[in-house]
Amino acid sequence: MTVRAAVAGASGYAGGELLRLLLAHPQVEIGALTGNSNAGQRLGTLQPHLLPLADRVLEPTTTEVLAGHDVVFLALPHGQSAAVAEQLGPEVLVVDMGADFRLKDPADWEKFYGSPHAGTWPYGLPELPGARAALEGSKRVAVPGCYPTAVSLALFPAYAASLAEPEAVIVAASGTSGAGKAPKAHLLGSEVMGSMTPYGVGGGHRHTPEMSQNLSAAAGEKVSVSFTPTLAPMPRGILATCTAKAKPGVTAESVRAAYEKAYADEPFVHLLPEGQWPATASVYGSNAVQVQVAYDEAAGRIIAISAIDNLTKGTAGGAVQSMNLALGLDESTGLTTIGVAP
Amino acid sequence: MTVRAAVAGASGYAGGELLRLLLAHPQVEIGALTGNSNAGQRLGTLQPHLLPLADRVLEPTTTEVLAGHDVVFLALPHGQSAAVAEQLGPEVLVVDMGADFRLKDPADWEKFYGSPHAGTWPYGLPELPGARAALEGSKRVAVPGCYPTAVSLALFPAYAASLAEPEAVIVAASGTSGAGKAPKAHLLGSEVMGSMTPYGVGGGHRHTPEMSQNLSAAAGEKVSVSFTPTLAPMPRGILATCTAKAKPGVTAESVRAAYEKAYADEPFVHLLPEGQWPATASVYGSNAVQVQVAYDEAAGRIIAISAIDNLTKGTAGGAVQSMNLALGLDESTGLTTIGVAP
Amino acid sequence: MTVRAAVAGASGYAGGELLRLLLAHPQVEIGALTGNSNAGQRLGTLQPHLLPLADRVLEPTTTEVLAGHDVVFLALPHGQSAAVAEQLGPEVLVVDMGADFRLKDPADWEKFYGSPHAGTWPYGLPELPGARAALEGSKRVAVPGCYPTAVSLALFPAYAASLAEPEAVIVAASGTSGAGKAPKAHLLGSEVMGSMTPYGVGGGHRHTPEMSQNLSAAAGEKVSVSFTPTLAPMPRGILATCTAKAKPGVTAESVRAAYEKAYADEPFVHLLPEGQWPATASVYGSNAVQVQVAYDEAAGRIIAISAIDNLTKGTAGGAVQSMNLALGLDESTGLTTIGVAP
Amino acid sequence: MTVRAAVAGASGYAGGELLRLLLAHPQVEIGALTGNSNAGQRLGTLQPHLLPLADRVLEPTTTEVLAGHDVVFLALPHGQSAAVAEQLGPEVLVVDMGADFRLKDPADWEKFYGSPHAGTWPYGLPELPGARAALEGSKRVAVPGCYPTAVSLALFPAYAASLAEPEAVIVAASGTSGAGKAPKAHLLGSEVMGSMTPYGVGGGHRHTPEMSQNLSAAAGEKVSVSFTPTLAPMPRGILATCTAKAKPGVTAESVRAAYEKAYADEPFVHLLPEGQWPATASVYGSNAVQVQVAYDEAAGRIIAISAIDNLTKGTAGGAVQSMNLALGLDESTGLTTIGVAP
Repeated sequence: MTVRAAVAGASGYAGGELLRLLLAHPQVEIGALTGNSNAGQRLGTLQPHLLPLADRVLEPTTTEVLAGHDVVFLALPHGQSAAVAEQLGPEVLVVDMGADFRLKDPADWEKFYGSPHAGTWPYGLPELPGARAALEGSKRVAVPGCYPTAVSLALFPAYAASLAEPEAVIVAASGTSGAGKAPKAHLLGSEVMGSMTPYGVGGGHRHTPEMSQNLSAAAGEKVSVSFTPTLAPMPRGILATCTAKAKPGVTAESVRAAYEKAYADEPFVHLLPEGQWPATASVYGSNAVQVQVAYDEAAGRIIAISAIDNLTKGTAGGAVQSMNLALGLDESTGLTTIGVAP
Repeated sequence: MTVRAAVAGASGYAGGELLRLLLAHPQVEIGALTGNSNAGQRLGTLQPHLLPLADRVLEPTTTEVLAGHDVVFLALPHGQSAAVAEQLGPEVLVVDMGADFRLKDPADWEKFYGSPHAGTWPYGLPELPGARAALEGSKRVAVPGCYPTAVSLALFPAYAASLAEPEAVIVAASGTSGAGKAPKAHLLGSEVMGSMTPYGVGGGHRHTPEMSQNLSAAAGEKVSVSFTPTLAPMPRGILATCTAKAKPGVTAESVRAAYEKAYADEPFVHLLPEGQWPATASVYGSNAVQVQVAYDEAAGRIIAISAIDNLTKGTAGGAVQSMNLALGLDESTGLTTIGVAP
Repeated sequence: MTVRAAVAGASGYAGGELLRLLLAHPQVEIGALTGNSNAGQRLGTLQPHLLPLADRVLEPTTTEVLAGHDVVFLALPHGQSAAVAEQLGPEVLVVDMGADFRLKDPADWEKFYGSPHAGTWPYGLPELPGARAALEGSKRVAVPGCYPTAVSLALFPAYAASLAEPEAVIVAASGTSGAGKAPKAHLLGSEVMGSMTPYGVGGGHRHTPEMSQNLSAAAGEKVSVSFTPTLAPMPRGILATCTAKAKPGVTAESVRAAYEKAYADEPFVHLLPEGQWPATASVYGSNAVQVQVAYDEAAGRIIAISAIDNLTKGTAGGAVQSMNLALGLDESTGLTTIGVAP
Repeated sequence: MTVRAAVAGASGYAGGELLRLLLAHPQVEIGALTGNSNAGQRLGTLQPHLLPLADRVLEPTTTEVLAGHDVVFLALPHGQSAAVAEQLGPEVLVVDMGADFRLKDPADWEKFYGSPHAGTWPYGLPELPGARAALEGSKRVAVPGCYPTAVSLALFPAYAASLAEPEAVIVAASGTSGAGKAPKAHLLGSEVMGSMTPYGVGGGHRHTPEMSQNLSAAAGEKVSVSFTPTLAPMPRGILATCTAKAKPGVTAESVRAAYEKAYADEPFVHLLPEGQWPATASVYGSNAVQVQVAYDEAAGRIIAISAIDNLTKGTAGGAVQSMNLALGLDESTGLTTIGVAP
């Protein structure tokens, strides 16, 4: 089986990473590539690392251009996916890498995005309970946010096993590609090299309700999330440090057992041996997730830490993994667990 | 007044930063510079950024060499300061940049360092309640750890004003100079560039009891600390993200007011205007501390964040600030609040 | 003596670095600070590392605002300085950090900048033969470009001593702050971290004629320059690798002797001991220049290498050094040779 | 066909990169992995990015361990390969990633390495004239040095087309992984981040005769090389800026034509469109080479610039490419021209 895939939004970081992965996917043929302000430009100029596509030219993002594909990936600014998706037939697999269809509660959407809620699609994080089944055969996929991917995989096993109190405290460091390719002064190399700085502090980051949604589902009760993202001086990677108070009776052994159980058969999540901790460099360019967990007896808290590549497992790799499931392919097709290091 | 200062341990990062600051101090004359394995080497080789001292040669760390100074700074490995300090007379100001004399509770020391406790000296963080008075005229100073400096200044106002529950959750990112100059494979540039990774997770980091000691003193009750340090791809800087559950009745206004009161007259701590967040680049090479605080009403938590230069305010700058107080000089002499950015 | 200084263009990197230095200058009082698009904004927002000036507000760049100062620094886009300078009286010291008054040959200016030549002012690189005398008492100063500073100091001693053939080949690596603060996609942190890339290859960089002008003056004959600048993943610093074929009879000793002679009494240029090589980290934030030279007998070439901080000695430090000379102050006032490292 | 490959020296950067590539090679089965001081350790500890091999344990580098493979890769310190290779039968393909068999002239070897010359094997840079044919079916391959790979591919077309005078001037910037994984103080992250510094200046770098050998062969006359390597603050990548005086009659068109001809059919070398310049980020983790060339008429020089990943095309990718040729496989098997960016 060969599927023909279009990418709407091929000039940005998410689109570029998706193309990198699709080029290595044995069952995908790359079809239309679109952009808006960049339509008409050579991909060799916009994405010089994608040599095999150097001579391709971006087309405008229109229904006509996107028609006639088996899969359409949307790497568009938030709020633009619904209109495009509506124009594509129900037989086309639409994989939305934006936020539009991730949240279940319209109130969450409206509070954090300020526009009417477009709906909810099957959620592209197969490792969560029930998610894989929902993706199989689906024609619509909402790819998770990069932070919710890292945080949910770090912490859901503790909640699924009823080990943690429903108040999670999360601090995550992200590489700068998570902030996108649009030029802004605070994202200049001169500003970010040598600097760590937080943003969206105090509950304002739009990924907060998505994390809460995932952890609450695992816990079977509402989990509140205190989330502080920080910008780190590196192009890629998320390190999520996630802690929650342990429920009474929790031990280091019970924590470890819960994580071993959760990740025994997952192809992309690697629970590290005790004593070894995740590093974003180890998952650079890979779809792997490194997870480690500790129980701090003195403080009475569980500390779960994950490392992902925000562009791969956090965005484009998650999209391909979900596409594989939706199309009935082996989930790992075209994806690697091998990082590019050092 | 001119004081003559010796530096024991002048080849490492702490010693080098101290010399950088002492060279700019109008009332300090730099005396003996010592090392151990590096004794006999030119400082121009070991610290090529200290041009005015390029032709100085390191001497061995002996009582004879250190004798005859008004101030002796000890930048030695943990556990070595007590023996050296004993040999220096009570009229000499000894400023210990190691951990030996920071902790009050011998049990804490023994648990985290595994050796007999050497004692407790006045604590070189003048911004803490009561600390400044204890430093004035003292002949012994224990310079705080870099993480406890960042964390205590971020969080003590909340505890001093009884706004926070006594369970702090802290995640801090540090530049690599905090790990020292001894060559280790995991600290190679190839390993750290592009990578974020935690260490000492689960309560094991030696700075944990020092943070708890400071916050407990401010709170008037025992404050437990969950502390996760992470290594960030930058040479200098600590960004400490510190959160605690708010006590009942806390509001954004009461939190802000507590911080404004705490830092109204501090020369080195800068509470940022609302909406602006600390960045380590802004305090690069300076003794300034940037602090900001938010109240996340949905999560019910106070989030206080600080940025320092781990080598300046976090080590050598704190040492000079304390020396100034101990000698009766203006506290800011020789120190700057201006960072080197971008 | 206290001089009152205005800075036109205080929101950019050059202006920010200048303010950092002026704040430490004992005889300067900082007067008006101006910007264009940023007029009306707090400096604490634009330059958060300059804490003592955080509450200053930028004014528009007008003759009225700049009037009444002893010194006016112009950190303006190329081509704008002449109009502003004309409005300032001949008794005001005007220090232009742009390119407008650096070149002597109008044909060079017109070829590389495409506009009419505004004139030539005394050149602010006191280490060049004759330059110091021309600066003393001058009311107009043209601060050199950052690359010409690094390259001229690396190579002029070889030309002044008639050791090198008049064809210089130069490859220099610059930190990203040299490209300024205006947001452009190729300067994003995501793009520059982990990447080295050249630009302006083949003779097109505007600093090329300025280098040729300086080296030709030293040589007493026209020196052609092949110059390739590269962008390096660091915020600051220039490492200039400069080579030229040795004239007949040159030896390693004669090369060394020429450099020792040239820099025997220079306060800011440090000829390193043999075997030690310049590093940009060693001059971070300092006005020092590290220089080293070798004679490659097999290839018959002299290789001279310099490291500077592009914003300090390469721009704002050079400006202050020249101001000191123009005002009759000690040349080193307010400047340091101590770098911030590691 | 499946070949069984052993890797001697699997714990270092070259060995790790080789394993990353071999894991993706459809016709390679990974056999013995050896180390010396690291024998007995898990690969998951030493190379945490190679998840599929995490549970493999390093064996000692002995003849017994290396026996029974179709291919043996040697990633050993210089000087150790000959002894190991001798023990392996002539039917085994031995690919040496060290320097031992690269140089043809024993005098060059002895001058730069100080030990007796072991011999010369077919040279693993297929893009050079005649090299591909020599590799096909060979049982011994000497993988080029990383700098000679970048430099030879940048410059040989100019020499092959008789466009350049036989004196090349080369300045190259390398990521830190080129310096290996053995911990040394000057390679610490604290030292390299934010710094550019040269080393081996003046003709002393061991890759110099290898470059000269390659360029001389292309030119048909002895080409002298002035080579200055610099260490750049990035983990991977080489940017080589290579210039030579143009021979009389050379034009921009004749230069361009020579490069277009040289690289018209090369699968891994990408001559960029005019106006676009190589960037190491674009070839991160890929076997591609970006090349661009300009003719500076004013200076009379050709400037050819290449970007490679020092660990991929510069070492392990070149090794796999050569293995493919030696085994009669498609040259590109298991290799990619797609970089991991940003």
